[in-house]
Amino acid sequence: MYRTHNNGALRLQNKGETVTLSGWVQKTRNKGFMVWVDLRDRYGITQLIFDEERSSKEAMAMASELGREFVIQVTGTVIERESKNPNMATGDIEILVAELTVLNSSLTPPFTIEDDTDGGEDLRMKYRYLDIRRKPVRQNLIFRHKVAMAVRNYLSEKSFVEIETPYLIKSTPEGARDFVVPSRMNEGQFYALPQSPQTFKQLLMVGGMDKYFQIVKCFRDEDLRADRQPEFTQIDCEMAFVTQEDILNTFEGLTKHLLKEINGVEVNDFPRMTYDDAMKRYGNDKPDIRFGMEFGELNEATQHREFNVFNQAELVVGIAVPGGNQMTRKEIDQLIDWVKRPQIGAMGMVYCRYNEDGTFKSSVDKFYTEEDMAEWAKITGAKAGDLICILSGATHKVRAQLSALRMELASRLGLRKSNEFAPLWVVDFPLLEWDEDTERFHAMHHPFTSPKPGQMELLKTNPADVKANAYDLVLNGNEIGGGSIRIHDKEIQSKMFDYLGFTPEEAKAQFGFLMDAFQYGAPPHGGIAFGLDRLVAILGGQETIRDFIAFPKNNSGRDVMIDAPAPIDQDQLNELHLKVIYN
Amino acid sequence: MYRTHNNGALRLQNKGETVTLSGWVQKTRNKGFMVWVDLRDRYGITQLIFDEERSSKEAMAMASELGREFVIQVTGTVIERESKNPNMATGDIEILVAELTVLNSSLTPPFTIEDDTDGGEDLRMKYRYLDIRRKPVRQNLIFRHKVAMAVRNYLSEKSFVEIETPYLIKSTPEGARDFVVPSRMNEGQFYALPQSPQTFKQLLMVGGMDKYFQIVKCFRDEDLRADRQPEFTQIDCEMAFVTQEDILNTFEGLTKHLLKEINGVEVNDFPRMTYDDAMKRYGNDKPDIRFGMEFGELNEATQHREFNVFNQAELVVGIAVPGGNQMTRKEIDQLIDWVKRPQIGAMGMVYCRYNEDGTFKSSVDKFYTEEDMAEWAKITGAKAGDLICILSGATHKVRAQLSALRMELASRLGLRKSNEFAPLWVVDFPLLEWDEDTERFHAMHHPFTSPKPGQMELLKTNPADVKANAYDLVLNGNEIGGGSIRIHDKEIQSKMFDYLGFTPEEAKAQFGFLMDAFQYGAPPHGGIAFGLDRLVAILGGQETIRDFIAFPKNNSGRDVMIDAPAPIDQDQLNELHLKVIYN
Repeated sequence: MYRTHNNGALRLQNKGETVTLSGWVQKTRNKGFMVWVDLRDRYGITQLIFDEERSSKEAMAMASELGREFVIQVTGTVIERESKNPNMATGDIEILVAELTVLNSSLTPPFTIEDDTDGGEDLRMKYRYLDIRRKPVRQNLIFRHKVAMAVRNYLSEKSFVEIETPYLIKSTPEGARDFVVPSRMNEGQFYALPQSPQTFKQLLMVGGMDKYFQIVKCFRDEDLRADRQPEFTQIDCEMAFVTQEDILNTFEGLTKHLLKEINGVEVNDFPRMTYDDAMKRYGNDKPDIRFGMEFGELNEATQHREFNVFNQAELVVGIAVPGGNQMTRKEIDQLIDWVKRPQIGAMGMVYCRYNEDGTFKSSVDKFYTEEDMAEWAKITGAKAGDLICILSGATHKVRAQLSALRMELASRLGLRKSNEFAPLWVVDFPLLEWDEDTERFHAMHHPFTSPKPGQMELLKTNPADVKANAYDLVLNGNEIGGGSIRIHDKEIQSKMFDYLGFTPEEAKAQFGFLMDAFQYGAPPHGGIAFGLDRLVAILGGQETIRDFIAFPKNNSGRDVMIDAPAPIDQDQLNELHLKVIYN
Repeated sequence: MYRTHNNGALRLQNKGETVTLSGWVQKTRNKGFMVWVDLRDRYGITQLIFDEERSSKEAMAMASELGREFVIQVTGTVIERESKNPNMATGDIEILVAELTVLNSSLTPPFTIEDDTDGGEDLRMKYRYLDIRRKPVRQNLIFRHKVAMAVRNYLSEKSFVEIETPYLIKSTPEGARDFVVPSRMNEGQFYALPQSPQTFKQLLMVGGMDKYFQIVKCFRDEDLRADRQPEFTQIDCEMAFVTQEDILNTFEGLTKHLLKEINGVEVNDFPRMTYDDAMKRYGNDKPDIRFGMEFGELNEATQHREFNVFNQAELVVGIAVPGGNQMTRKEIDQLIDWVKRPQIGAMGMVYCRYNEDGTFKSSVDKFYTEEDMAEWAKITGAKAGDLICILSGATHKVRAQLSALRMELASRLGLRKSNEFAPLWVVDFPLLEWDEDTERFHAMHHPFTSPKPGQMELLKTNPADVKANAYDLVLNGNEIGGGSIRIHDKEIQSKMFDYLGFTPEEAKAQFGFLMDAFQYGAPPHGGIAFGLDRLVAILGGQETIRDFIAFPKNNSGRDVMIDAPAPIDQDQLNELHLKVIYN
């Protein structure tokens, strides 16, 4: 037996007890006649004391030579500390050590095992097993476990059944790129890793499982953007005999439960906003509504003068920055530079100061009157002391630009509070989106999404206007979940594949099993999937998912700790009937 | 809203209520003036009634045309049944239908959706979504969910943290064959799918996570034996600062909890048996101890006469078959044929009848006396009325043969009761096992298993005698879990790799990260992994895992429903820098 207690357990009431502890040496202080050691494990830190008078010479000598991260086992007596540490759970006591055993030594770690480490990202990832010893990372992983357990118990309680779907499935060119797995036993054939269990969960509904969920790894072989992982975890859910309303209510319930259980926060019923409305008011389909700064569309209030930049724009739109009039000219110029960066891509920015005395001062004074600017203030909701920022151009682009500016300013103004939660349903997504590259419409969600009732005909005439029974759950400006009511009718599904450019042969080859299934009594059904990595990060008050994943990959999809991917043996390639073609 | 209640919910106290139900048509009975429909969903069956007097003509007409597996929605009134069905939860009531909507039609299913279906295995797998509608399969999947939840809640309660380890890892030639995943972004490089999260869970222990578990998919590209799947699910566990005793106690606790929670069975403390003992007493390292028929070694009691078959054998060993003397000569001859089948491979079998009157009659009467045979009876524990079956030959082979015979006879005699549970720890496994093909020793468990203290030196002189801190949990003759105390010392791990034939370069290339980790304060640690698929099947009183997996693969590793694996596009191959070499 290596321990009687963990290092977070002992209190003053244990005084006098003989205990055995094990753990890592966090730090030592050696005063010659006395040595203190902070002993650490997952549960806490306990102070050990060795002294000339009460400890054996041997133990004293060994204690003097302990290095950081040595693994030791000690037996001793719980004594009351002379100088207590109220910041530590075990701060009232220390262990007077009688016996010390070194279980393992340690080289000096490449970075400090402290809450704030001196290790950079790369070093931390290479030695992730040491990084995990740091409290913030450890706590994040425990936090993730708590969230996952809360999800499972809640859904289980609501009669959902967790069902494992296969990982070795079939590649489909639709959507993102698949990771594939060559089959040794079937020459020239491949499995694919699932991008999501979409078709399987639909088949489970056809199979009468009624309420399904799964916390499941999914895979996408995409060029990685920051904070994306090639393998990620979904809370995947599906229900039969439901309308959109049933699904929103069920998963609003789950989200409320998590906020309460995990964060101790009670939130009101979630507001709902159409996709069109979200784009108009926030320039974004996942608006952060923890703060205002809503868009004010200024076409009418700006296009009656001689300012051609505005007059030629499809959209002129502004936001009021609270207290923004305090910015110096230089600060505003920097803001203009910020929106002109290639990542944002605006051509420029018009600003208008709303002075405390009620007057206005703008960068386009020579074109507009005070009355014009008072109107802008009214439309954008600006108050005296605010700054109105106005962008103009093509609607699609200018909304994205102003949305980026809104988020940036909110961050700078401290309006994105990590302990505040503002969930929101965005509904009525378009069924299709235009793809510039292929010059055709793609399914915005996926090809199984049901159009709104009666809109199937619109597909032929106004495809961009067709709305879907599709919805996203947005939390603090992040899409944490998305789903839809599915098509459950074989004819409609066939038409949809046809519309999306599948030949009947392709549709059959890739999704024949689903179309077949729909012939045998498919019930109405729909579902949702949450990104667990992001959900956990947001509930944890952070924005980066990487620190909530035990062994993440870097932006090149590499695991730098185990050094994967890596070449494999020629024998393995031969068995798989494969040859690598080097460029 | 598609329903107010599910089809298992309504009782007599709901009489008079107007309800809406949805589900599948299980069957219809049409008497012309009256139509009954059994409406089915996951929760049960509710009887619907349409009649000329009380239902609309339209509803009557539609009801008459409903086919099996049509999906319908009905609204009606709960009424008391005239002839109640006590075998159904809803058997006291029926629904007098006012409105009927057909939500989806159905072709006639290719097999009957009944508890006992007329569908063969192949057909059921191709239309698995229909198979899942059958109660036994549905119940198995729900049962699996319950077991998984019970495992998670129990371990979570005991401070274990479920941590997700990566699926895209690195291929290692040790052990079984890996499935690999070509990396598009790294020409000529591959990820591998994990055969188990072994090294990651050890790194989590180095990282101080202390108690880890994960219910996780694992992958092995092996030629499939019956009832094996290329992807399977493990309950994977690891603990730091533990001895073997701590692990056995912890997971005995889990197993007892499951037996109680899931099966309502309380079992005593699990017996423990050494590997050597299990082989000697049952010829098998996973003995089924629900029944006796222990091996009796008969070398001394048989090799003193002129019977050369026994005299030349390394081992002569027998079992007493309870009541076996009732077998006819013909039945015994069939048994002899059975052991001579190539799958068993015995050269023959000697039998000895123990007559009710206390006399013996054996197939080797001319060599042995009554006293000899009385001695055999004593050694094998035979009683009057039993049959003693004796095999002889090389120890290793003859034990396996007699073990197979023991299990076969127990099945025939009904001694393997599915509602009886006899767990057992088998401990002190050999560290190594001899591999005939490569003519060297392999790690029996895996190369991270710690030898028993002080046995490292034996490796050089008597490698086959080295015992490991390795253990299996056996339930009803199935290995449901196995684990070991790991090596946590870099030097010992290096020596082990060296012994197992790894060059230092190979060890570094494949496990360098683990060896590195061991330099930075690795704690003593150990763990266990349970096969969830098998555990669930056994707890469910069955032996076949396939019916506890939603979408299993067949013995060729194919998913016949989705038809995977399958060829992929040339574009995909090009992007992956791969060419298929057809033989």
